[in-house]
Amino acid sequence: MTSSAMRDLMAVTQRPDVISLAGGLPDTSTFPAEDFAALMARVAVDSSAAALQYGPTEGLDGVKDCIVQVMAAEGMDVEPGELLVTTGGQQVIDLVCKTLLDPGDVVIAEAPTYPGAVPVFTAYQADVVQIERDDDGMRIDVMEAELDRLEAAGRVPKFIYTVPSFQNPGGVTMSLERRRRLVELAARRELLVLEDNPYGLLRYEGDAQPTLYSLDGGEYVIYLGTFSKILSPGLRLGWTAAPRPVLEKLQLAKGGTDLCTSTLTQYFVTAYFAERDWRAYLRSLVELYRRRRDVMLDALAEHFPREATWTRPEGGLFLWATLPSYIDTTDLLARALREESVAFVPGRAAYVDGRGGSSMRLNFSGVGDDEIREGVRRIGKVVAEQVALYGTLTGAPPTKRRPRVEGAGDVLPLRRRAQ
Amino acid sequence: MTSSAMRDLMAVTQRPDVISLAGGLPDTSTFPAEDFAALMARVAVDSSAAALQYGPTEGLDGVKDCIVQVMAAEGMDVEPGELLVTTGGQQVIDLVCKTLLDPGDVVIAEAPTYPGAVPVFTAYQADVVQIERDDDGMRIDVMEAELDRLEAAGRVPKFIYTVPSFQNPGGVTMSLERRRRLVELAARRELLVLEDNPYGLLRYEGDAQPTLYSLDGGEYVIYLGTFSKILSPGLRLGWTAAPRPVLEKLQLAKGGTDLCTSTLTQYFVTAYFAERDWRAYLRSLVELYRRRRDVMLDALAEHFPREATWTRPEGGLFLWATLPSYIDTTDLLARALREESVAFVPGRAAYVDGRGGSSMRLNFSGVGDDEIREGVRRIGKVVAEQVALYGTLTGAPPTKRRPRVEGAGDVLPLRRRAQ
Repeated sequence: MTSSAMRDLMAVTQRPDVISLAGGLPDTSTFPAEDFAALMARVAVDSSAAALQYGPTEGLDGVKDCIVQVMAAEGMDVEPGELLVTTGGQQVIDLVCKTLLDPGDVVIAEAPTYPGAVPVFTAYQADVVQIERDDDGMRIDVMEAELDRLEAAGRVPKFIYTVPSFQNPGGVTMSLERRRRLVELAARRELLVLEDNPYGLLRYEGDAQPTLYSLDGGEYVIYLGTFSKILSPGLRLGWTAAPRPVLEKLQLAKGGTDLCTSTLTQYFVTAYFAERDWRAYLRSLVELYRRRRDVMLDALAEHFPREATWTRPEGGLFLWATLPSYIDTTDLLARALREESVAFVPGRAAYVDGRGGSSMRLNFSGVGDDEIREGVRRIGKVVAEQVALYGTLTGAPPTKRRPRVEGAGDVLPLRRRAQ
Repeated sequence: MTSSAMRDLMAVTQRPDVISLAGGLPDTSTFPAEDFAALMARVAVDSSAAALQYGPTEGLDGVKDCIVQVMAAEGMDVEPGELLVTTGGQQVIDLVCKTLLDPGDVVIAEAPTYPGAVPVFTAYQADVVQIERDDDGMRIDVMEAELDRLEAAGRVPKFIYTVPSFQNPGGVTMSLERRRRLVELAARRELLVLEDNPYGLLRYEGDAQPTLYSLDGGEYVIYLGTFSKILSPGLRLGWTAAPRPVLEKLQLAKGGTDLCTSTLTQYFVTAYFAERDWRAYLRSLVELYRRRRDVMLDALAEHFPREATWTRPEGGLFLWATLPSYIDTTDLLARALREESVAFVPGRAAYVDGRGGSSMRLNFSGVGDDEIREGVRRIGKVVAEQVALYGTLTGAPPTKRRPRVEGAGDVLPLRRRAQ
């Protein structure tokens, strides 16, 4: 799927009659409008001229102090001087590519990988090598073999890109053992790792895993964080913590790209951290999204055919479903939009090489319980039609539905692998 | 001067004891804090969830309607569908380079050119050809000769970059005749032009000139506009209007760069245009900056030596002063900061090839009348010391000061060429 086709799709999902499970939208309706107004009034009274003015390229000290708090909540100890404030997390990916890549350079990524990173890698003409993953995240053993193969061909990746926690789009989380192996490998081979961690604090069950950045101590890991999923993506406020020589390059590139990130939104976040309890709001999001995840898992068990598999994320915003290989989800999406007014992200968007053709990414944070149920029911309907059509054409027996399970959380007795 | 040296310099200029005529800061203290608070309260009441959410990559319809108004105020007729909202005007320069340039490609620019564009061109490994200018802007005849020379070598520029009105850093404005010639030339040779117009509405005297975009009708001209100088740079809100095939490429690149521009700041601008008189605020800025320009021209006449020349801008934020060739303004800046706590932008920052060594850019929008007078006095003092030192070393006679002229506006009976 081309980027422009993807954009056309996203435009269609804005239609009011369409239920979109395609986006990666947090539910910003839960942020109190009166807090928004009160905090902005505070910024106006205290800092109007400064908030409307240019700021330093590296970001304001006030917002860096907030970032230090957010990173500390995931066990990371960072100094303000090690941070660069960016225009959303997406800008970190762009700046890292801009700074490190020449055309043809190798980048290692997960298979599937964040669909929003694919056009960036492509724009910088990277040679992306995608490493398969299982329920414990990226297969580090497979990556090591791939690194050896590349080295034998005289090639060294410029960096390894990973979303270790509640991966977008896979929904899986890298195990502690693999995290340790990845960090050890990076140090031994002197490879940079870009750790993209927008969802780490959105954990709905299980134990928190240490970030790669904390395991590595900031030697080889470039950390990407964002306020998008714990507060608001409309602020476009993210950051990176990086090894000093990399940070300096990123900062120079940032200056050329947009001079500085919005001072106004930085002041807003600073006021929010000073005057409200950001952890309490985060807890409310965790409660909300946990329930929506469970609603989606329940609906999948009810409406998707037996041949389908999907991941069971312990956090984040997405799960990844895989259908029988004779179903092409790009075609399915066109049909789902046309006939059932429902949208998802087709799996190919998460690969550079056309794989993922029978998979889809489903988001459970952006719409309410009823829409999740109805959206999954509609997708299930077009999938069932495809399965039945295939059965008619091949003479295969029709599939049986599993019995409906009322309770959430226990619908999938076995954690299943997406692929 | 390297980018990192430039950054270090800019950091020093933040010291409270330093008078900085180096930046390009509008005076945001003139925007009423109570309006800021009231408009944000309006956004919170009407659109809290939407303002905190992701928006479309191309920008919100509401802010595009504001942009249509701003462009109409300079005689341009544009449809919302021809616009892409960006994270400040700087992002347009970056996206145009990202989209159009391969390493080694030729870009035509003015000599001197916007110092903030230089590191972008350098980052994309452009071969920048700078065309000299006089009081009527870029010398189109010289550019034509250069284009012929390039064509003979089998090279065609990817685009021509120009700030036609109140140029940064030169302060000069391209004449109507040259504008017509440039647009005609672009069409005849099928060359794209990037028209960077942040200051067009900040005219203090003389007749408005039509933009290249309006003369060209959007065929070969990519237009860059921004709210930074007519409202606030802290919003990071700019835009481009471009020929359709270019616009589509820019939009794809924009998505990979930062997904979308801050929805919050777009809602703020939309509310501002709906509930306040943006033209009235603009008029107040024009009055303010006209006076500051006149104060600076007056101070230059009083404190700069006879050998110095400077431009007399009809609008914008900057003028360009040139000292005797034996003075190196990069060295002078170090001395001015150390001994007199005053800053300017050394001329070399506006060239890719080390020229401009005896020139400087001076800003008159960011500080008040007294600081402008005192800042120019301090710079004049270190310049005078250099001139005297040179005289001592070479036996040249000391220079005479011109008598002080009290009134502003008539201090320079002849419009003088900077170089």
